[in-house]
Amino acid sequence: MNERMIKIALDAMGGVNAPESIINGAALFAQEVKDVYFIIYGNAKACHEHIAKHASLKNCYELVDTNTEVILDTDPPLKALRRGRDSSMYKAIEAVSQDKADACLSGGNTAALMVMAQWVLGVLTGLKKPAIVGVYPNRVGGCVMLDLGANTECEAEHLFQFALMGDVYAKIVLKKHNPSIGVLNIGEEESKGKQLHKQVYAMLKAVENINFYGYVEGNDIMKGTTDVVVTDGFSGNLVLKASEGTAKLCTEFLKEALNSSWTAKIGAYLAQTALKNTFAKIDPRNVNGAMFIGLNGIVVKSHGSSDAIGVKSALGLVYNLAKRSVNTLIMQELMLINKHDNLLSRIKKKLGLGNG
Amino acid sequence: MNERMIKIALDAMGGVNAPESIINGAALFAQEVKDVYFIIYGNAKACHEHIAKHASLKNCYELVDTNTEVILDTDPPLKALRRGRDSSMYKAIEAVSQDKADACLSGGNTAALMVMAQWVLGVLTGLKKPAIVGVYPNRVGGCVMLDLGANTECEAEHLFQFALMGDVYAKIVLKKHNPSIGVLNIGEEESKGKQLHKQVYAMLKAVENINFYGYVEGNDIMKGTTDVVVTDGFSGNLVLKASEGTAKLCTEFLKEALNSSWTAKIGAYLAQTALKNTFAKIDPRNVNGAMFIGLNGIVVKSHGSSDAIGVKSALGLVYNLAKRSVNTLIMQELMLINKHDNLLSRIKKKLGLGNG
Repeated sequence: MNERMIKIALDAMGGVNAPESIINGAALFAQEVKDVYFIIYGNAKACHEHIAKHASLKNCYELVDTNTEVILDTDPPLKALRRGRDSSMYKAIEAVSQDKADACLSGGNTAALMVMAQWVLGVLTGLKKPAIVGVYPNRVGGCVMLDLGANTECEAEHLFQFALMGDVYAKIVLKKHNPSIGVLNIGEEESKGKQLHKQVYAMLKAVENINFYGYVEGNDIMKGTTDVVVTDGFSGNLVLKASEGTAKLCTEFLKEALNSSWTAKIGAYLAQTALKNTFAKIDPRNVNGAMFIGLNGIVVKSHGSSDAIGVKSALGLVYNLAKRSVNTLIMQELMLINKHDNLLSRIKKKLGLGNG
Repeated sequence: MNERMIKIALDAMGGVNAPESIINGAALFAQEVKDVYFIIYGNAKACHEHIAKHASLKNCYELVDTNTEVILDTDPPLKALRRGRDSSMYKAIEAVSQDKADACLSGGNTAALMVMAQWVLGVLTGLKKPAIVGVYPNRVGGCVMLDLGANTECEAEHLFQFALMGDVYAKIVLKKHNPSIGVLNIGEEESKGKQLHKQVYAMLKAVENINFYGYVEGNDIMKGTTDVVVTDGFSGNLVLKASEGTAKLCTEFLKEALNSSWTAKIGAYLAQTALKNTFAKIDPRNVNGAMFIGLNGIVVKSHGSSDAIGVKSALGLVYNLAKRSVNTLIMQELMLINKHDNLLSRIKKKLGLGNG
């Protein structure tokens, strides 16, 4: 095997249509990208049946039988961690910690994956909390948002570090040279928000080398006002799900409208190519994949209900993150923190220990 | 003048197209509803020009000249309060406090309106904080959500009282007999969320006579899982704006798609009736109007960019709230709080002073 291949550990058993959707997605990806190698963890019999169908997977995979050990979506994370050491999910993460793989993808139980990943890989040196980071489809292509739900409560320093990680992520995933960074708030004025926001505002403003925009509001995410939107995991998760719910409702209403009469159906037929092209822009399958960022290893969560196209898209993300060594870049940004630690201390002191 | 009329104090100068849109909206409303009387506050010359065009307004209005005193969208709320005592906004609120009007509608500066309304009217006895409440268009028609931005930080008792006010509001606005109430959180399990959420969960669960569902997530708002969604003003504002932004983006993408080719344009032409009917369901103009709930008087904010149809829709809300005496009903619900105060104290004690 070529040592310069990107090796991806694949939890083949996580998600609604696993292992079929996972393997089909890997096969689609392998058709387009040649320097990829999969270590597939799953029930050998079930996996092999699907692998055998794809010529593109030939010579670019190995299969590790995890028998019937699977983490269920209903498993509480700590139970999954205690009892699931032989599961496809655990083994895939372990492959990253043992340097067998460059990165890992799973479509399984998010909370279990997060706890396992943090347990097995540990947090990057100098970092206080890992976060969930994803890309929101929007007017200008997409924006990177974090935290999407890992941390219910955050302090200013957590958000500050999320901003630096989001900066790196946007460079890789959005291919931006100098991504603009916004802190999510309920107004654009400096006086808005909680104490927390005023603190993180002052901290980010003090850092050179980053493109800090200031506060952004809920609607700025879709407008694309900034490339990165930083928030706590509670707000991030609410906003993510509310937006997904709204987009889903709009799509459902549109489908109902286009099915409500014969003329509407004919109209829909005529407009179908245009509708498909345009709605591909906000198709979540095309922006599938959220990274657990801030760990000693790359772990990406694919949406549990993804089909092969969604899995292929998530694999594209995993591949890029590994190829560009996302964690090395984050460590370099964290150096910035250390460099700025004095500066930050001074700001916090000036703010009267956070009374900014 | 018939004393059983619903008298609405109208800030004719607030909003982008004021006073034209406000007066045209009032005229549209007066075409359909006969027991309404407007006290119009604004620049007499500018207002009269538009009033004169509408036969429907004849004999159902009086005009109070506030000359050129107008609160600007850019005025900081405290400045507006200090210097704006002769403004159309202040006068309209004052009419409610002086019992000249049953309720007030303004499309002006939200923060200024909120501060003025609280200053002039005061908070309902027994209530800790007023909130902004509105209706979200969704799969089942709509859900009542509060707080949408009045209170950045909330305690459990605030959210508890918001739930009771939301209950009353949903009875009037959604015409629900026994509205279901959900607390916005990042998971449905009882263990999810912050301390605050666990406390308010325990408090609401303990109250009889209300239909408490439990936690709801961001996407439940659009699904219509509950009739009322309770949250703090920070989260509520983020979610509101993110959803509005998403709906706007979907609509824009749809328009672009239907304009992108000749066949798409013909298709759009054929489907236009169906599209219009369906998108009316999520047209914000049809659910325009957010109440500042919890004050000694009814004050409703109309969206600043509303056209006449939006203003008419907000007037329908104001009219219903006044006709049904929303504040009397809230006071009756607050009695419940007093009745339950012992109960709540016991719960909080049982939870170890909030260690629930």
